[in-house]
Amino acid sequence: MTDGRCTLGVDLGGTKIKVALVDDAGRILRDRRLATDAAGGPDPVREQIVSTCRELLGAGSQTPLGLGVGVAGQVRAADGVVRFAPNLDWHEVPLGELLERDLDLPVTLVNDVRAATWGEWLFGAGKECDDLVCLFVGTGIGGGIVSDGRILAGSSNSAGELGHMTVDLHGPPCHCDNHGCLEALASGWAIARRAREAVNADPVAGANLSRLAAERGCELNAAIVAAGLQAGDPLARWIVDEVSRALVAGCVGLVNAFNPRRLILGGGVVDGLPELVERIDQGVRHRALAVACEELQVLPARLGGDAGVVGAAAVALNRAAGKGAAG
Amino acid sequence: MTDGRCTLGVDLGGTKIKVALVDDAGRILRDRRLATDAAGGPDPVREQIVSTCRELLGAGSQTPLGLGVGVAGQVRAADGVVRFAPNLDWHEVPLGELLERDLDLPVTLVNDVRAATWGEWLFGAGKECDDLVCLFVGTGIGGGIVSDGRILAGSSNSAGELGHMTVDLHGPPCHCDNHGCLEALASGWAIARRAREAVNADPVAGANLSRLAAERGCELNAAIVAAGLQAGDPLARWIVDEVSRALVAGCVGLVNAFNPRRLILGGGVVDGLPELVERIDQGVRHRALAVACEELQVLPARLGGDAGVVGAAAVALNRAAGKGAAG
Repeated sequence: MTDGRCTLGVDLGGTKIKVALVDDAGRILRDRRLATDAAGGPDPVREQIVSTCRELLGAGSQTPLGLGVGVAGQVRAADGVVRFAPNLDWHEVPLGELLERDLDLPVTLVNDVRAATWGEWLFGAGKECDDLVCLFVGTGIGGGIVSDGRILAGSSNSAGELGHMTVDLHGPPCHCDNHGCLEALASGWAIARRAREAVNADPVAGANLSRLAAERGCELNAAIVAAGLQAGDPLARWIVDEVSRALVAGCVGLVNAFNPRRLILGGGVVDGLPELVERIDQGVRHRALAVACEELQVLPARLGGDAGVVGAAAVALNRAAGKGAAG
Repeated sequence: MTDGRCTLGVDLGGTKIKVALVDDAGRILRDRRLATDAAGGPDPVREQIVSTCRELLGAGSQTPLGLGVGVAGQVRAADGVVRFAPNLDWHEVPLGELLERDLDLPVTLVNDVRAATWGEWLFGAGKECDDLVCLFVGTGIGGGIVSDGRILAGSSNSAGELGHMTVDLHGPPCHCDNHGCLEALASGWAIARRAREAVNADPVAGANLSRLAAERGCELNAAIVAAGLQAGDPLARWIVDEVSRALVAGCVGLVNAFNPRRLILGGGVVDGLPELVERIDQGVRHRALAVACEELQVLPARLGGDAGVVGAAAVALNRAAGKGAAG
């Protein structure tokens, strides 16, 4: 399996940073999690990454072959620039170059969702499969497409924005300014919006969900809907049915367009509502073209929250192996 | 440009067959069109293809490197079997093997829409571009995806069924048994259905379209709607606006998911309603993610009805050049 080679992976988000030393079988040897010091711009964040990498390396004798950084935003793989990271409020930050100088290692930048796709593909539910689609349903929705053994990048390196496929022409507005996107119907934020609207429209029907939110001292959100479903609440059931319907529609489009061998479903919403995997499986088989389902497996993601950091490390390993960056 | 190499291409449909001798710059040297003798099963059709190929070759001195056959149906590229061709009512016909024996040439089978994508990619609006999506809007809707210089095939060789992406969760039924597919809203048959329903619902508003159909002695169809639009008919305007809206929604999803450099629009409906290209271009730029549109060009297909036969010949040339079949 492993021949002692390892790389560093970073999963850089607006609220937290994960750093891990990962071997070439995708196993995390050591890792750290910390809150992103986002208020001061790129410099403090870069220092957090550098000092955490040094700390991880200081604890052992391994010499990593490189560092891969998954960033929640748009990156330009060629020169390691973070073009735009909304949650960090970064524009055109040459993070790759800066980290290379600090750590004296080759650094490869990749979008965080694409990094998670790399992780699931090489070491998770996509292992040993060359045609797959990953769909991550969390606060937002994104994904990645592997076709014939390659991750699609697209002409501006933005391929995989699967949350912004229109599934309901007449649907509600999305954060992207379009409307009826899959994300506007089935993401964590869309579930929260739908729950709020339903509870406001009918406070009696919404009493269970309101009480659950009050007990937990939080707003109505996808976790409250999942708890309501567990407790047998009919409004939660209705919301999850609608979410499931939208996800089936989106996945039918993906299966018909790409004909993947595996459709891998991950992210916080799927983790919180595991019945979705089975329902999407059944719905896709019922509604997609028969030929497109012949070889299809619908599977839950396996790496959970580690997919991003493991995938970022895999991108760095791939580059070190001379297969080229593919951020 | 050309070094004298040529291949034969066949575009095999349920009503007509096109056969052409094509040079390696995609130019048709000689061609024939004939009505498909579909009633007697595969044998008469195979004889039509064989005798037409021989006729084309007899008229000159060229020796083709191979034959590519685009089939309106599902093909298995590996062994040249037509798995299912609904318009021909064929199941599991080993057409490739039979034609190889008859013509003593390497034969490569490919789906007809994918053949047309090959044609547009290599010799039409996609020339010298390695990331593109072709969407052909005709009686049905299909397409092809080229990413980083390769046509996506998928796990059962059915990738590119872009007409069966759901764009309206609550939309009307489709021929594929799902509902709300792009094809169910914007294909030739869907336009005809919408026109019939609108005219039946309001015969006064539909009087112009009914008269145009009566004058031409045909049913209400997409061509009648196009003629009505030309004549300033408000109902035709409304239908085309709805079709345009559905196509924009579908294309936004394609652009966000694949991030192509070119989106190429062809097929009879686009040819009959050329304003659609401009409207899709504007609509996509308005609604898709900005990053996904950075490099995007939206273009009409260039090869028209020849894309399939030229593309099938190109697939055969590609195979002869040792690049492998890619049906």
